[in-house]
Amino acid sequence: MISHFSEVSKGYWSIQPIGYITSPYKQKFGVARQPGLVPAALAYIDLSKEFTTDCVRGLEDYEYIWVQFIFHATVKEGWQPLIRPPKLGGKEKKGIFATRSPHRPNHLGLSLVKLERIECNKHVRIHISGVDFLDQTPVIDIKPYIPFVEAKPHARCGFAREHEQLRVYWSPEALQQVRLFSLDTKHYDLINQSLAHDPRPAHQSKSNKIFVVNLFDWDVLFRVIDNIVEITGIREHIET
Amino acid sequence: MISHFSEVSKGYWSIQPIGYITSPYKQKFGVARQPGLVPAALAYIDLSKEFTTDCVRGLEDYEYIWVQFIFHATVKEGWQPLIRPPKLGGKEKKGIFATRSPHRPNHLGLSLVKLERIECNKHVRIHISGVDFLDQTPVIDIKPYIPFVEAKPHARCGFAREHEQLRVYWSPEALQQVRLFSLDTKHYDLINQSLAHDPRPAHQSKSNKIFVVNLFDWDVLFRVIDNIVEITGIREHIET
Repeated sequence: MISHFSEVSKGYWSIQPIGYITSPYKQKFGVARQPGLVPAALAYIDLSKEFTTDCVRGLEDYEYIWVQFIFHATVKEGWQPLIRPPKLGGKEKKGIFATRSPHRPNHLGLSLVKLERIECNKHVRIHISGVDFLDQTPVIDIKPYIPFVEAKPHARCGFAREHEQLRVYWSPEALQQVRLFSLDTKHYDLINQSLAHDPRPAHQSKSNKIFVVNLFDWDVLFRVIDNIVEITGIREHIET
Repeated sequence: MISHFSEVSKGYWSIQPIGYITSPYKQKFGVARQPGLVPAALAYIDLSKEFTTDCVRGLEDYEYIWVQFIFHATVKEGWQPLIRPPKLGGKEKKGIFATRSPHRPNHLGLSLVKLERIECNKHVRIHISGVDFLDQTPVIDIKPYIPFVEAKPHARCGFAREHEQLRVYWSPEALQQVRLFSLDTKHYDLINQSLAHDPRPAHQSKSNKIFVVNLFDWDVLFRVIDNIVEITGIREHIET
């Protein structure tokens, strides 16, 4: 098959997405900071029609897959040599290649996600979970996860450590709205897991004001006091 | 900083290498089939001058790094929906996205390698080991390895399993040539480790003819009988 890829001119290469992601995260604020943190974040990749069932033959034998993608929503913002990682409270600067920030030279993302199932109808649809993708993310490659090569549980690592989760508490008003909007367990879990990881930006980590996060078709209102997240309400999403 | 990256036209994106690799593997034949298999495979990435010391600040805190790269030597060969992985003896076909074959739609590679050290002089040079890169490979991104997200030692996986290594035996002639060419331990280890993983193509896995593999500046002649590799000779590399 003709390559999707070519060296357009010396030192410039052209790539083409193989498919696009449909995800519950419609806005950057609230997207899980790492894959796997929010198992209830379900999404799927629709492959372009030329990538037939043949292309994914045997992929179901793998529990996890690598998704290589484009941070399409930050391309316009360019890249930065130094980044203030949210995990360090936004105070310390690290080199862009020592972080997983989207503000990278080629805006390439890499996420390890769980493969749920593959649907092959008119086109191939790959269902995945534990995602940290924005809706409509362009996918440029999919690869199987090979534990004997890629699992290094004891690897020394810098500032990127697992952080403590917050406890999530639903106000009586919010619980009433859950019933009103007929949110099911899937949605309920996504909200709980997403907020437990404290989506507030690092520079507002002390703020107890009300934040609004958009998940699926809803806006979820919450505030954080100490290590507790209080969900104060849910409403239909308003475009801002 | 201005992005290295842009959507050239609808659905096409342009990327630019951030640097290039210098590796002992000058030809495709003999390159380790996975990163980490040949710890003695030392290489380095020279970053383009615009990526200053700032860009790698804090990277030394990580033991392993992800290198995203272009399979530049297979771009002209295009891609294939179905692949015969060497691990399956070349008999069974798997979908391209269920393999790590270089014959992929966007020719993007991903390897986990050990970070040895970073040199910052006129430009940034990142020394790495356990590589499976061809010399002159264009690098498009570098990311830290985050074990708590990316280490899944018990993940179910398909045909990609660790295979048995062969025993390597040096003929008296080959050992004499080691002395003649003043090969040091580093070269000796690279040859041993590379051949222990049987670089012969799957369709010749029964052949006991003499193969020639190019490593550094040398051609290494070997044959495989049962589970023993015999190195029959070493000579200066001849361009073919």
